[in-house]
Amino acid sequence: MSVVTLEKCRENIRKQLDNVVDFWLKYSLDRVHGGFFTCIGKDGKIYDELKYVWLQGRQVWMYCRLYRTMDRFHKPEILEAATVGGAFLRKFARVSSSSGQWKCAFCLTRDGKALKVQRTIFSECFYIMAMDELSRLTGDKDMQLEAEQMMEQLIYWVQVDPSGLGRPQLPGEVPINSLSVPMMLMCLVQQLTEGRGQEVAQKYKELGNWCVEQILQHIQRAGTAILENVSVDGSELPGCQGRLQNPGHALEAGWFLMLYGAQSGDKEIHRTAIRNFVELPYQYGWDKEHGGLFYFLDVDGHCPTQLEWSMKLWWPHCEALIAFLMAYSHTRKPELLEIFSEVYQYTFSHGSSTCLVACTCVSAFWMTCWKTRTEDSDMNDKGIHVRD
Amino acid sequence: MSVVTLEKCRENIRKQLDNVVDFWLKYSLDRVHGGFFTCIGKDGKIYDELKYVWLQGRQVWMYCRLYRTMDRFHKPEILEAATVGGAFLRKFARVSSSSGQWKCAFCLTRDGKALKVQRTIFSECFYIMAMDELSRLTGDKDMQLEAEQMMEQLIYWVQVDPSGLGRPQLPGEVPINSLSVPMMLMCLVQQLTEGRGQEVAQKYKELGNWCVEQILQHIQRAGTAILENVSVDGSELPGCQGRLQNPGHALEAGWFLMLYGAQSGDKEIHRTAIRNFVELPYQYGWDKEHGGLFYFLDVDGHCPTQLEWSMKLWWPHCEALIAFLMAYSHTRKPELLEIFSEVYQYTFSHGSSTCLVACTCVSAFWMTCWKTRTEDSDMNDKGIHVRD
Repeated sequence: MSVVTLEKCRENIRKQLDNVVDFWLKYSLDRVHGGFFTCIGKDGKIYDELKYVWLQGRQVWMYCRLYRTMDRFHKPEILEAATVGGAFLRKFARVSSSSGQWKCAFCLTRDGKALKVQRTIFSECFYIMAMDELSRLTGDKDMQLEAEQMMEQLIYWVQVDPSGLGRPQLPGEVPINSLSVPMMLMCLVQQLTEGRGQEVAQKYKELGNWCVEQILQHIQRAGTAILENVSVDGSELPGCQGRLQNPGHALEAGWFLMLYGAQSGDKEIHRTAIRNFVELPYQYGWDKEHGGLFYFLDVDGHCPTQLEWSMKLWWPHCEALIAFLMAYSHTRKPELLEIFSEVYQYTFSHGSSTCLVACTCVSAFWMTCWKTRTEDSDMNDKGIHVRD
Repeated sequence: MSVVTLEKCRENIRKQLDNVVDFWLKYSLDRVHGGFFTCIGKDGKIYDELKYVWLQGRQVWMYCRLYRTMDRFHKPEILEAATVGGAFLRKFARVSSSSGQWKCAFCLTRDGKALKVQRTIFSECFYIMAMDELSRLTGDKDMQLEAEQMMEQLIYWVQVDPSGLGRPQLPGEVPINSLSVPMMLMCLVQQLTEGRGQEVAQKYKELGNWCVEQILQHIQRAGTAILENVSVDGSELPGCQGRLQNPGHALEAGWFLMLYGAQSGDKEIHRTAIRNFVELPYQYGWDKEHGGLFYFLDVDGHCPTQLEWSMKLWWPHCEALIAFLMAYSHTRKPELLEIFSEVYQYTFSHGSSTCLVACTCVSAFWMTCWKTRTEDSDMNDKGIHVRD
């Protein structure tokens, strides 16, 4: 792939991002109750009014990040949408809990009433992302504190006592290390510490290291597989759960880990990130016959129990695009760019659904941020830079 | 479709049933801990040892029903498997609950420790099916009582107070009438009352009528659609949830309702069952381009939010085969037999997966039970008869 072709990819992605942001600014904001509609047809019509907290949080984060870091999105309507979305989240996402712990709803009605609470940490993760990023725009210290307090809650659930999540403790249950948990916590550490200075960096340093350690436990079978669920001491679990592979998650963890390696200057982690969490999941996760990344696989080749295992979803492809481009920009190895190109061709020739258009938002943003012309590909490069 | 062709279908299904029963008898029973393995490869190898309570219950029911009603399955190894499975279920499926209510686990470890509890009624439904059917073989009155006590618990959850299911009550939640609930309760009423005499029939009569009423509420949009979820007063709900269609469920409800109509002599219900719950779901649920029944549809043609919406699963096809054959055997309308033939062709030319082989068990049993040669097609025919 030549520099000229790469520049064309970039132009395409920039255009896609502009279209996506225009679309969501036009149709998504609920001016009556606040927050965002997220079930929107191609024609802009709302086909469901429910407000999912993951998406509310991601959208607030996205608008803030665009506004804060890219000149062409530094527009009052983006700031307004972010603020209205953030206010809705802050007012309604937290639900009262009998244990006195902080918990976020998974889904709210249009006017903000909690409809469903998941017994996981992920609504809270996206709440933190939104609050932290919005506090950077508004300078609202109280909001930043809220993000950090919710983070304390998450850490407590993950490292000390998960009972506040609401899952009954059952005799057959074995505690597991699921890749999504340390991966998301690492993403949050990167979010909360970015540009906040030494004190905040120090506060989360140990947690960041713990996340790395937990993520690396998922390298199994003598380095030939990333398994989605392992035991808490890092060994393989029995059955379908233990053999499950989720190539998109592995690739996502890969670029989080690559950023960590680049930022901390840990070359070994950086190499491991590329070898085990970027190249490897592509090798086992790519459909050699029809192209595209599988959603789930079983490391021993059994049929996964998830019905959707063989589907090609938008998001693993976005993770792969980011991961391979970042790996290339850090190493300049042409084979990484070749794979980027393959994934790019597949993604943009198969991804015409509304869902793809709607959801590539965050990822498209990342992809507009790479630098094709800077020459500093060494480990001192602090990850991918923002460019307008 | 001629009688000769129909007889060939019957022979094929009889052969399939024999193969399925042989396979499961050979590989499924866990002689160490009791219960059944349910994740079994085509080669008979166990690829996961977890024991799902739905499947344990269905398998016990299936073996008992085969043993009790069909001469060629009246074999000691089937009785033994049913007994071992039933003992495992009875010992381990019920989990203690802080509320003092009866709740069944959804999933158990190989040695019977609860691993997951769902906040729905369905594990309990299949527990009741198993206990009632097994008590008919063993004459165990205590087991029959256990089935009836669990049934009381279910009725309490559905009609009085669902809080014992463990779902937190949330301000945005609206109580809904989900088709699967009255449908399963009606199935249980039919199970518990079958051949038990007037006293038991009387005990569940009101509940049976209530189930019918609840099922009929799902006929929406001036009789042109069966919607999966409606409000408790029988009106359409907003959003994706309200527009959801599940053709397989509608067809399943259809043949339960047809049996109810035939048994109670209610010709109007019987006609409604065929028109609205058998013919109609086929009309909107059948893929005109590629054949097969969709898993989910949106009545307004939006893309359902379930990733697997367009997949052709084994079970809706089994429900359709049973429903159309039953409808034909009750009415002798040739167009119903034509549709049976279309579904049959599709099912047996596309269903080569282990999953299909494994799971058609219950349905295949039903299909061997139709009568091709009896002439009594009027409403006095008490449903499909068992034939060997």
